[in-house]
Amino acid sequence: MALVVQKYGGSSVADASSIKRVAQRIVATKKAGNDVVVVVSAMGDTTDELLDLAQQVSPLPPGRELDMLLTAGERISMALLAMAIANLGHEARSFTGSQAGVITDSTHGKARIIDVTPGRITEAIENGQIAIVAGFQGVSQDKKDITTLGRGGSDTTAVALAAALQADVCEIYTDVDGIFTADPRIVPAARQIPHISYEEMLEMAACGAKVLHLRCVEYARRFALPIHVRSSFSQRVGTWVAAEPPAWAAGAKPTTSDSEGSEMEQPIISGVAHDRSEAKITVVGVPDKVGEAAAIFKTLAAAEINIDMIVQNVSAAATGRTDISFTLPMTDGPAALTALKRIQDQIGFESLLFDDQIGKVSLIGAGMRSHPGVTATFFSALADAGVNIEMISTSEIRISVIVGQDEVDAAVSAAHHAFDLDSDQVEAVVYGGTGR
Amino acid sequence: MALVVQKYGGSSVADASSIKRVAQRIVATKKAGNDVVVVVSAMGDTTDELLDLAQQVSPLPPGRELDMLLTAGERISMALLAMAIANLGHEARSFTGSQAGVITDSTHGKARIIDVTPGRITEAIENGQIAIVAGFQGVSQDKKDITTLGRGGSDTTAVALAAALQADVCEIYTDVDGIFTADPRIVPAARQIPHISYEEMLEMAACGAKVLHLRCVEYARRFALPIHVRSSFSQRVGTWVAAEPPAWAAGAKPTTSDSEGSEMEQPIISGVAHDRSEAKITVVGVPDKVGEAAAIFKTLAAAEINIDMIVQNVSAAATGRTDISFTLPMTDGPAALTALKRIQDQIGFESLLFDDQIGKVSLIGAGMRSHPGVTATFFSALADAGVNIEMISTSEIRISVIVGQDEVDAAVSAAHHAFDLDSDQVEAVVYGGTGR
Repeated sequence: MALVVQKYGGSSVADASSIKRVAQRIVATKKAGNDVVVVVSAMGDTTDELLDLAQQVSPLPPGRELDMLLTAGERISMALLAMAIANLGHEARSFTGSQAGVITDSTHGKARIIDVTPGRITEAIENGQIAIVAGFQGVSQDKKDITTLGRGGSDTTAVALAAALQADVCEIYTDVDGIFTADPRIVPAARQIPHISYEEMLEMAACGAKVLHLRCVEYARRFALPIHVRSSFSQRVGTWVAAEPPAWAAGAKPTTSDSEGSEMEQPIISGVAHDRSEAKITVVGVPDKVGEAAAIFKTLAAAEINIDMIVQNVSAAATGRTDISFTLPMTDGPAALTALKRIQDQIGFESLLFDDQIGKVSLIGAGMRSHPGVTATFFSALADAGVNIEMISTSEIRISVIVGQDEVDAAVSAAHHAFDLDSDQVEAVVYGGTGR
Repeated sequence: MALVVQKYGGSSVADASSIKRVAQRIVATKKAGNDVVVVVSAMGDTTDELLDLAQQVSPLPPGRELDMLLTAGERISMALLAMAIANLGHEARSFTGSQAGVITDSTHGKARIIDVTPGRITEAIENGQIAIVAGFQGVSQDKKDITTLGRGGSDTTAVALAAALQADVCEIYTDVDGIFTADPRIVPAARQIPHISYEEMLEMAACGAKVLHLRCVEYARRFALPIHVRSSFSQRVGTWVAAEPPAWAAGAKPTTSDSEGSEMEQPIISGVAHDRSEAKITVVGVPDKVGEAAAIFKTLAAAEINIDMIVQNVSAAATGRTDISFTLPMTDGPAALTALKRIQDQIGFESLLFDDQIGKVSLIGAGMRSHPGVTATFFSALADAGVNIEMISTSEIRISVIVGQDEVDAAVSAAHHAFDLDSDQVEAVVYGGTGR
């Protein structure tokens, strides 16, 4: 008997009939002999509708009250889901984030989980009940106010709760079959990845793969909790995010031909991720003195802007000046430009360039540690596809390049093909997802 | 400086613009130097929409989960109201029933308040904040589950909270100007009542006056808390429900002509209430033996049916049998008939009659204690209007009669006129309510 934590997103509980379908899946898991704890998001468009109401009442609503408002969304979906399960003859109890013991700091709108004390959930499990927990929400430790966790919040709730309960697995249900080697809308031959390590998944999430949020993967890695990303619209096995593929998952996996041992076939590259949400700022003509770059990035940090890649070219000896380029979320562009304008005289740089027509393409794979020449193969493939590289950044298991936004598709396809990821070359795995 | 608890119903916060209007009224009360605590219901049709969703998911949802679902309604309205107040430059904090310390028993759907421990509300007041509290909801003492208080729940929350906070007044805002001597839709000359005692208001509420619910009046009487029922759509003084009209209200009252002292003019009758929601069951041919009536009403009590009026006529000597008639909520009719059918052989009665075409008309007034002849005047007025009386029931400050449902209007008008309640005969008070 296993303890399974399942998380269903908003699209899986969009209306009454979806909720009933999800209830059947939950009951099936329970009937198979598992203890089940479910984390649920708000129904479909509920959050947007509530935000719209808030906007009608106040242009800049206080964070505390906005959190109080938005948490009504999961309250509705979790109560309905508990009803639907009861209707199938199983006992279910819904719990708010506060009741489930999700303790956070006081940062409304993007609170961080400090502790999880799931006493009431444990009690429900011991009573043979299915516990339904509101995702995305918690209660602040000091003020006992309702908080929300921000982007990827429900996934984080599920993983944090699973870790606290020492669950065997956290199943994240979504509208695609799992994590793919590339976005199937760009690369039709992309394969679903059966297993991926936490480190690789972290790089994938950080580089634009949208199925799992960075935060929840970080949490899972810290507690060595296996995540199973799968579709709520099919019974297929999805992608296991774990240090090792768990033994009891191996039996459930689609059988591969015995002639090819899986270890022999471990690909160098796990996947190709891309991200069109960044922009590039270039600070032109920065005096080449000690501390100037530090002053620039201190200013950006003070404005709470997250920088991704940074490139500084060699100072031209004639002028004693250099250019510094960096990428950042496109939406932070105006704030960054404003902050930099304010220190132009102090730093003495010449001008600012802003380019939001860029895209980031990243190769991710623990296998590249032991395979030299990955960078050469990657860059050759891009060159053959006629793609120009603007910036480069690497980690031990990742290579990212910045290219023109309209060259992203060509770059992703070229890289996917160059590293033998295309499905007809490795193994045929049927997938039906939409690629998000 | 006074502590004012204000309660706004669903029609007062039906949409964003209504919420903004209510926020202005609350801020005006605060600016006038009062501490303000607000109890709010769910927006307009929210509760019905949530019930409809529940119905789509489950025909018979568990009470615990239905309460969890419905309490999302006040969560939304209270957060929006707090935002609207913040927008006007005043600090507001919303609190769920649980956060406000509304402790109840575990009867989901119609929980009773056991205790109110409003520590967080007191703290908010001390910090100069306006506290917004979700009406209708609480948390159960033993299981810490979310509960709802059932019909009239938000009024009860407001009065219970006001009592616990030792507030100076509980203002109940509604869509009419106060309590009227009769339903103005039936009696256009009906007057708004400036002051009414708890006992009279209890009888009015029990006899069909819908503005205040019985429970909240009972609560207010127990704690001697003055209630001020008034319209959220005007600035007019409404009806004070209190042992005595409070001194600081007297100054705000519409001036009456000095030639008529208010004590001299105290009317015998405070108002005429009516109720079309009851039905009558007659148990025909009950053997006239000791204990037969007891057996009938024990059976009805076991089926949790509330009986209102009971009449037993004299036994016919020839047959040794009698008829017993009683009234009950129309909706309980089928359950009552089923329960009685089951004991027909045991009791040996002949048959059951069911009549849902009845109405109850009640005269209420503490003044009738010291005025003999009220019954005679009442019955004469009904006779002159051609209204036949089917059943009669009296208390010290009330006389109720059951009449045909289509004679209710005529009976109410005749009684109102016979006891000089018509506005042109006593004093002209302008009213603008719709009578509900």
